[in-house]
Amino acid sequence: MASWSDKAAAKRAALAALIPSDLKIASPPGPEVLNVTGFPFDSILSPRDIEITETADVGVLLKKMSTGEWTATEVTSAYCKRALIAQQLVNCLTEILVDRAMARAKELDEHFKATGKTIGPLHGLPISLKDQLDLEGVELTMGYVGWIGNISKKNSVCAQLLLDQGAIFYLRTNVPQALMFGEADNNIFGRTSNPYNRDLTCGGSSGGEGALIGLKGSPLGVGSDLGGSIRIPAAFQGLYGLRPSYNRVPYCGATNSMLGQEAVPSVLGPLSSSINGLGIFMKAIADAQPWHHDPVALRLPWNEAAYNLADHGGENAQLCFAILWDDGVCAPMVPYARALKETKAALEAAGHKVIDWVPYESARGSKILIDIYNADGGEDIARARALSGEPKLGWSSVLDATPKHLSTYEYWQLCHQKTLFIKEHLDHWNATVAATGTGRPVDAIIAPASATVPSKHGYPAYIYYTGFCNLCDYTAAVFPVTAVDPSVDAKPAPHAFHSLVDKANYDSYEPEMYRDAPVSLQCIGRKNEEEAVIRMTEIVDAALKASRK
Amino acid sequence: MASWSDKAAAKRAALAALIPSDLKIASPPGPEVLNVTGFPFDSILSPRDIEITETADVGVLLKKMSTGEWTATEVTSAYCKRALIAQQLVNCLTEILVDRAMARAKELDEHFKATGKTIGPLHGLPISLKDQLDLEGVELTMGYVGWIGNISKKNSVCAQLLLDQGAIFYLRTNVPQALMFGEADNNIFGRTSNPYNRDLTCGGSSGGEGALIGLKGSPLGVGSDLGGSIRIPAAFQGLYGLRPSYNRVPYCGATNSMLGQEAVPSVLGPLSSSINGLGIFMKAIADAQPWHHDPVALRLPWNEAAYNLADHGGENAQLCFAILWDDGVCAPMVPYARALKETKAALEAAGHKVIDWVPYESARGSKILIDIYNADGGEDIARARALSGEPKLGWSSVLDATPKHLSTYEYWQLCHQKTLFIKEHLDHWNATVAATGTGRPVDAIIAPASATVPSKHGYPAYIYYTGFCNLCDYTAAVFPVTAVDPSVDAKPAPHAFHSLVDKANYDSYEPEMYRDAPVSLQCIGRKNEEEAVIRMTEIVDAALKASRK
Repeated sequence: MASWSDKAAAKRAALAALIPSDLKIASPPGPEVLNVTGFPFDSILSPRDIEITETADVGVLLKKMSTGEWTATEVTSAYCKRALIAQQLVNCLTEILVDRAMARAKELDEHFKATGKTIGPLHGLPISLKDQLDLEGVELTMGYVGWIGNISKKNSVCAQLLLDQGAIFYLRTNVPQALMFGEADNNIFGRTSNPYNRDLTCGGSSGGEGALIGLKGSPLGVGSDLGGSIRIPAAFQGLYGLRPSYNRVPYCGATNSMLGQEAVPSVLGPLSSSINGLGIFMKAIADAQPWHHDPVALRLPWNEAAYNLADHGGENAQLCFAILWDDGVCAPMVPYARALKETKAALEAAGHKVIDWVPYESARGSKILIDIYNADGGEDIARARALSGEPKLGWSSVLDATPKHLSTYEYWQLCHQKTLFIKEHLDHWNATVAATGTGRPVDAIIAPASATVPSKHGYPAYIYYTGFCNLCDYTAAVFPVTAVDPSVDAKPAPHAFHSLVDKANYDSYEPEMYRDAPVSLQCIGRKNEEEAVIRMTEIVDAALKASRK
Repeated sequence: MASWSDKAAAKRAALAALIPSDLKIASPPGPEVLNVTGFPFDSILSPRDIEITETADVGVLLKKMSTGEWTATEVTSAYCKRALIAQQLVNCLTEILVDRAMARAKELDEHFKATGKTIGPLHGLPISLKDQLDLEGVELTMGYVGWIGNISKKNSVCAQLLLDQGAIFYLRTNVPQALMFGEADNNIFGRTSNPYNRDLTCGGSSGGEGALIGLKGSPLGVGSDLGGSIRIPAAFQGLYGLRPSYNRVPYCGATNSMLGQEAVPSVLGPLSSSINGLGIFMKAIADAQPWHHDPVALRLPWNEAAYNLADHGGENAQLCFAILWDDGVCAPMVPYARALKETKAALEAAGHKVIDWVPYESARGSKILIDIYNADGGEDIARARALSGEPKLGWSSVLDATPKHLSTYEYWQLCHQKTLFIKEHLDHWNATVAATGTGRPVDAIIAPASATVPSKHGYPAYIYYTGFCNLCDYTAAVFPVTAVDPSVDAKPAPHAFHSLVDKANYDSYEPEMYRDAPVSLQCIGRKNEEEAVIRMTEIVDAALKASRK
């Protein structure tokens, strides 16, 4: 019987064999080349391939296909090629499905040619999938050696609805072992690197998505978010990403870690190089009526009035944002302060109000969240590892090394504590009505996407800047603001620290090491506010762009 | 230190002392008087009190108050009096709040007099509350002796929103110990009886509500439903009742058994003597925007288009109903077959299609549901009982006598099995599109409200006729159809049985014993379909009434 490492090596070799020789990088950049975003893709890709993949705007891509200017075949081909080059630079893929994608593109083109019509709002759009979204007939390992050989019997509901809307699937992307730490790295595929600096993390758990889209190997990807797993990789690659609230995007039929953990459910959502990708994805999913196919999906059609901020004073109302500068447990690295200041100034220049967000008992909330993740004492993950005997990977800050396995009664108490906490958090938000001057509580919170900029590989991340949204089920989008610039982002002098994790985060910051690392923020609205959060993120993004002119 | 029975007796005595002497029944009917719905209320109540409480139509009550024809004070007074008489007949109350109610009614009347306006859509409506809905400053025991002395610090969110909309609270109603068996009976307040036949059960767990509204001591009550706890007592008293889907009506701040059990959440919802009570309640709650006050409440405003059946072919479309005659585990008692046949004929006469519903793996679904209830090995309930040392009550069919206490990992596996099951159930429903002829899957299922008509006291009920809706999160309303008539509902000849519970249910049926017991059905729609289910229930109810003319 083959050892786990032999099985993993065979899977890696099979994956590598799917890269055709004409897409092989003749002289790959050595490990000393950290930033590969400037790789000369035009040395392999055609000018048309470059034009397509550098478009990086989902709305434009769809428009050009719906008008017949570009065919699905040429768009798919361009993204397939660029993704396979990206794979050689940052090791971001787990499955390569080029043949399937090209056959599907051909069908779409034939349909368009015969009818003059698209088959749906996503007609021809290549969409990358995190290695959790089952596709009929395709192996799904989620990075577990023991799952090699698992062939999915059905499309996950999300994948099926995207197909129904016209999407094309051409690959899946890398994840951390068990999805439970913040960097895509596992015993089959190894580690994915950040294209801006390959010594830094791509983030996770949707890290393969982040790295791939960061290299323009995909215009839009589907990730999942249990504690920040869409937002952190989106942030670390300077992308847009949305964490929808529970059960808005159908999870049914997709694979996951800790299936049955419903206290803080993981959610699916989009990462994209373009901000309009978020709304296009969410509207396409809602229009496909996922509640007919997923028994826990909410019956929430796309709400155009909510997108037009009906619950926030209307389309042209002054909004009041609140800035989370520091959550009181772990101060964000200094580039975030600069990004927050820039955003505050941009929003004020655009006529909006900006106040400070007072964090609410972050240590307590963070402990509840981590305790829920750890409630099974790690048994689910241990069982999956035991299938092959592969070793454990990961960091102790998210999953305890030796967590206590709770009884159901103890777990219910924990869940009840969660409910009490999130009620207090909601009341805390409601109480801001006294400070906004708009007659409404704060419309959205602007927060760092993480306490760290993309860190060194293997650095244990503090996740509560994203995690409190998972706990409270707040809708949150990530948007890029700036990048680490050692000339302005000097390391502050030593000072008193909130906590050990705060000190560790401070200690690990070295401006030069993080040069060019993307610095991104979140726009956070309430539960079931996907439309309004997308719109408010567009407003923030536009204000930032306007402020730079 | 007082024994548990002394404490319980003191609580009962304090409750009894709140009945003023002029409302005491001079010669209470003896235990041999089974049907007390014909009690001469006019021997104690004024003609106006009778006129008000016999109105029994929530819409009419509200209209008469909003036009100033009746004051809140006289309406409240009438219901207070009738409820206190009902208490003496069927023992349905746990708290009596007449002074609070009358003071509130006076405030409303003063507001109306001063402004000419109501304070909200529920202006002046007395609403009864199950003994779970916390009211600031009021003791809440939920029937546990050990909770005597617990004074609520805040109004539960649901109660607060109803107050904001103009409701008046004047009492709370009886429940089973721990809420976990189907008859209101506990060690403090004892057993509530069915007003149609005091030898029969009022049902549960919202049994006090059922008995009270059944005697017209309340026009509308708030109950909770974990496995049928709104629908069964509504059915057993010939009322209307709605089980909304998860998190539509805010539960936050209310008390419950097994807090933190989120796999099959209990839901709050209305019981009413009038069908329009269901929609009035749900619209008032939705209009109060519970998502601003309950962190898990869904952002789902009242949807008038859904009420007008936008998802079911439109206002005047032919609907297709499917009848669940027998779930394959426990056949309903024979009066249900008659009620189903009558309903089928009425719907066909009204121009709708009616097909058979094929039950889907009832034994498997029922086991999953019961296993979830039992997952903590009964620890939550045992702890609550241990506070006072009171003995255990209840039936083994819902809570096992010796359930296994699952680990969190085992519990997560169970929750995952639930998700797989309800996906299959949804697909099963979707597949009916082939049989309906409408182009849609079945619009609603018509099912018995229970396998039993209101049974003898202490009879262990089979709950899956209601329970599968809790498991799958289907929205379901109960409506009355007929009553047991020994002359037509003869006991069938012995035959083969599906199961032991089927045989026990058959054995326990004796037509004469159940004479006049209400026989009610459910109209079952999908998750988040409250509006459409209310409308379809109105359609069924109207068809039945038309068929009797």
